[in-house]
Amino acid sequence: MAKIPHRLYLTEEQMPKQWYNLRADMKEQPDPLIHPGTHEPLPEQALYPIFCDKLAHQEMDSTTRYFDIPAPVLDMYQMYRPSPLCRAYNLEKALDTPAKIYYKFEGNNTSGSHKLNSAIAQAYYAKEQGLKGLTTETGAGQWGTALSEACAYFGLDLKVFMVKVSYEQKPYRKAVMQTFGADVTPSPSNTTEAGRAILAADPHSNGSLGCAISEAVELATKTEGYRYVLGSVLNQVLLHQSIIGLESKQAMELLDEYPDIVIGCAGGGSNLGGLIAPFMQDKLTGKADPRIIAVEPASCPSFTRGKYAYDFCDTGHVTPLARMYTLGNGFMPASNHAGGLRYHGMSPMLSKLYHDGYMEAVSAKQTDVFAAAVQFAKVETILPAPESAHAIRGAIDEALRCKESGEAKTILFGLTGTGYFDMAAYQAYHDGTMQNHIPTDAELEKGFATLPQLG
Amino acid sequence: MAKIPHRLYLTEEQMPKQWYNLRADMKEQPDPLIHPGTHEPLPEQALYPIFCDKLAHQEMDSTTRYFDIPAPVLDMYQMYRPSPLCRAYNLEKALDTPAKIYYKFEGNNTSGSHKLNSAIAQAYYAKEQGLKGLTTETGAGQWGTALSEACAYFGLDLKVFMVKVSYEQKPYRKAVMQTFGADVTPSPSNTTEAGRAILAADPHSNGSLGCAISEAVELATKTEGYRYVLGSVLNQVLLHQSIIGLESKQAMELLDEYPDIVIGCAGGGSNLGGLIAPFMQDKLTGKADPRIIAVEPASCPSFTRGKYAYDFCDTGHVTPLARMYTLGNGFMPASNHAGGLRYHGMSPMLSKLYHDGYMEAVSAKQTDVFAAAVQFAKVETILPAPESAHAIRGAIDEALRCKESGEAKTILFGLTGTGYFDMAAYQAYHDGTMQNHIPTDAELEKGFATLPQLG
Repeated sequence: MAKIPHRLYLTEEQMPKQWYNLRADMKEQPDPLIHPGTHEPLPEQALYPIFCDKLAHQEMDSTTRYFDIPAPVLDMYQMYRPSPLCRAYNLEKALDTPAKIYYKFEGNNTSGSHKLNSAIAQAYYAKEQGLKGLTTETGAGQWGTALSEACAYFGLDLKVFMVKVSYEQKPYRKAVMQTFGADVTPSPSNTTEAGRAILAADPHSNGSLGCAISEAVELATKTEGYRYVLGSVLNQVLLHQSIIGLESKQAMELLDEYPDIVIGCAGGGSNLGGLIAPFMQDKLTGKADPRIIAVEPASCPSFTRGKYAYDFCDTGHVTPLARMYTLGNGFMPASNHAGGLRYHGMSPMLSKLYHDGYMEAVSAKQTDVFAAAVQFAKVETILPAPESAHAIRGAIDEALRCKESGEAKTILFGLTGTGYFDMAAYQAYHDGTMQNHIPTDAELEKGFATLPQLG
Repeated sequence: MAKIPHRLYLTEEQMPKQWYNLRADMKEQPDPLIHPGTHEPLPEQALYPIFCDKLAHQEMDSTTRYFDIPAPVLDMYQMYRPSPLCRAYNLEKALDTPAKIYYKFEGNNTSGSHKLNSAIAQAYYAKEQGLKGLTTETGAGQWGTALSEACAYFGLDLKVFMVKVSYEQKPYRKAVMQTFGADVTPSPSNTTEAGRAILAADPHSNGSLGCAISEAVELATKTEGYRYVLGSVLNQVLLHQSIIGLESKQAMELLDEYPDIVIGCAGGGSNLGGLIAPFMQDKLTGKADPRIIAVEPASCPSFTRGKYAYDFCDTGHVTPLARMYTLGNGFMPASNHAGGLRYHGMSPMLSKLYHDGYMEAVSAKQTDVFAAAVQFAKVETILPAPESAHAIRGAIDEALRCKESGEAKTILFGLTGTGYFDMAAYQAYHDGTMQNHIPTDAELEKGFATLPQLG
C-alpha cells in the first residue's frame, strides 16, 4: 500500500455510529455505587435527581454492548470529527527508534480536548429531557470549555464551578466559557452549603475538583430543571469517549496496523477509558493482547500509590461512594502541579481492570512531562496540553526501550488536547522555575485518613 | 447528491500540488518596488541580501502562472492540511437567511492561523539555500508563532521582533514561540540602529509593525547566514497563500457550488490574496464574476481611507518603496485596537486590483466585529481570532441583506484563525469596556504626512 500519511481522517461513512460499553465484555464488574449512609447499592432511579434519566441509565447499564449515538450528537460530532490518527514520523526520526508511533489527536476543536465528545452527549440528553440547564465543575478548564460549547449549541444554561486556583491562574479559560454564555463561579464559593463549609474550615482554600463537585451537585439538586454533569470518572463518560478508541482502531485497521502498546494519560480516566476500550475488548475476549499503560502525574498518583477502596467522589461528601483507586477525597496535589489530572480518584471501571491485572500504570514527574511536550511540539507541530504530555512521555520512554532492544513495536497513544491555555506552565518550564513535588508517604497517609470507614 | 457535510476535507490526492500566481493573469501589473533614493525599479538581485534567492525570484516573477510546491513543503502541509471547507448551517439558521454560507477554516494547526502556509515555504527555501537562520517581526503573534513552528521543523534559528505592546499584552504568545525555540525581542529595542532611533524619538513607544520590520531587516542584512522573512503584503506570501483559495474552489466544485460573494479580512492581504486568488482569476479571465469584498478594521482603514501611493513598507525606512493603499508609514492604530490587521499599508497586488475596480472594501468597528465573533462561536463551535471575525462580520451583513431581498446567494469567507490568545479582548467585549476608535481626518493627515515625496 501507499506510504502511511502523517494524518489519517476517516470518511463520514467510516465513522462509528455507536458507542461501545466496555462493561459488557468484563468478566467481573466494577463494584457498584453505594449509598454513603446505608452502604446499599444504588438503584438507577436514585441517580435521577442528579443526572438526567438517560445518562443515569447509561451509568448503570453494564450489559448493553453498543449504544446508538443519537443523530443530533452525530451532527455536532461531524463539526470536528473524525479526529485524525497521526503517524509520528518526525518523532520517530528524532528518537532514532525502530518503533512505529501513532497518536490519536483530539485537540482539533475549540474546546481543545477530547472532553467535547462527552459534553455533547450529556448536553443533548439534558435538552431531550426538557431540562433548562446544567451545573458542573472544572479544574484546568478543558471540561468547562467543552461543556460551554455544547450547551451554547443546544441552547442550555450552564453554571460552572471552577477550582479557585485555576480561576485565578487562567482568566482566559473563564473568558472562553463566558463567550459561549456560561456562568462561571470560583470554588469554593459562598453560594452553596458545601462551599461555605469548606471556606469556614479554610477561608484561603485554593479549591479542588472534589470541592467543586460538591458545589455543583448541590446546586443541581436544589434547582428546578437542572441536573449535574461530570466530565470524567463515570461509566457514561467512558462510554461516550469510546469513540476515540473506535476511530483509532478503525483507522489502524485501514493501515493494516494493530498496536503492541496503547498509552493514555490518566486523571479521572475519561480519555484513557475511551482510547483503550476496543483494545481492552480484544484483550478481554482473547482476540489480542496489547500492553495497556496509564501514565499519571507523580504529584497525583492514584493508580500507582492509591488504595483500591470505597471513597466519596467529592470533598463535601454529597455524592455516592465508588470503589476505585483513590488518594482519599481530602487529597490535594501540591500547588506547583500544573494542568489537569488532579483528581483524587479514578474511574471505577478502569480501577477494576487495573486491579485485575489487565493494565499497567506508571507515573511521571512534571519536568519530565514538559520535556516530552517540548520535544514533541518541535517536530510534530502540535502544542500539547500538559495532560496529554503524560502520554507523550510514556510513548517516548517505550520508544526508547525499543531503540535499546531493537524491537519495532507499534505504539499508539492518546494526544488528548492542546496547551494554549497552559503557557504559564510552559514559561515556568523554559525559565527553569518549574518544580516537582512527589508526595511523601506521610502526605499520602493524610489523604488516606479521609477515606470513609465502611465498618 | 448527499447532504453537504458540515466540514469537507479534500483527500491527499485532491490537494493542490502547485501554488497559483495571480499576477500571471493580471492585465495590468502592480507598480514595481523602487529604490527609495533613486526611485528606479529594483532588479531581483537587489533583494538577495534581504530575502533568500528563490523567494526573491517568486517576489519578482509576474509571468509564471503556477509554481510547484516543493516536496518537503507538501510533507509539512500534510501535517495540518487540507483545512476544511465548512458549511455554516447553524449560522444560516441563526440568521434565518436564505443565503448559503461557506467558510474555509485555516485555524486547525498549532500556530492557529493561515500564516503557517507561507511560513513553511519561506523556512524551507531558507534551509535549502543553506542559511543558518531567519529574522522577522510579529504583531499580534500569529506570524511569529507560525514561523517558529516552521523553523523548529526545518532546524533553523529564528529571531522575532515582537511589537512591544503585544509582547507585554500577550506573554503567552511569546511562550509558544519560545517552546518552538525562537528568540523573541520586544520592538523597538536597543539591539538595532532602527530601534535605537525610534526609542530616541519616543522612549515610551509601544512599537508598530513598521518599526519591528525595520529592526528585523537590519538584523538580517547585518548577520552572516541570515535573511529576513515577512508574513504578509509581499507577492511571494500571496503566492503561498493561494493554497487557501485553490482548496476552497476545489472543495466547492466537489459540492457543485460556486460563490456569488467571496469575503476576506484584510490587514496586509495574506489571507485575502490567497483566498480570492482562483476566484479573481475567473474574474480576470471572464469565466465568472463573483463579488470580492475585503473587510478591514475601521481603526486601520488602509483600503477604504488610505491613499494609493508609493510608501515605505516600514517605519525606519530601511525597505524599498511599494505602491499600495497606505495610511502612511508613520500611522499607528489607536492603542485600544485589539488583534492584528494593524499594518499601515496593503499588498501592492491587491491594491492594484482594488484600484482597478476588481474588488470592494468595507470597514468594521471592533465592537461590531466581536459581536459577530461571539454570535458565530456559539453556533459554529469555533472561537475565531479577532482578525477572522472581520470576515464573519462581512459575511453576516451580506447574509442579512439576502434575508431582506430574499436572494439565496452563496457566500464564501475565510476564517483565518482561532482566538485563544485574544481572550483579554473578548473579556473586554464581555465586560462592556471595549472601545472603538475611528481615526479623524486630522489623524489620518498626520499619517499621510509621513509618505515619502517622490518629487
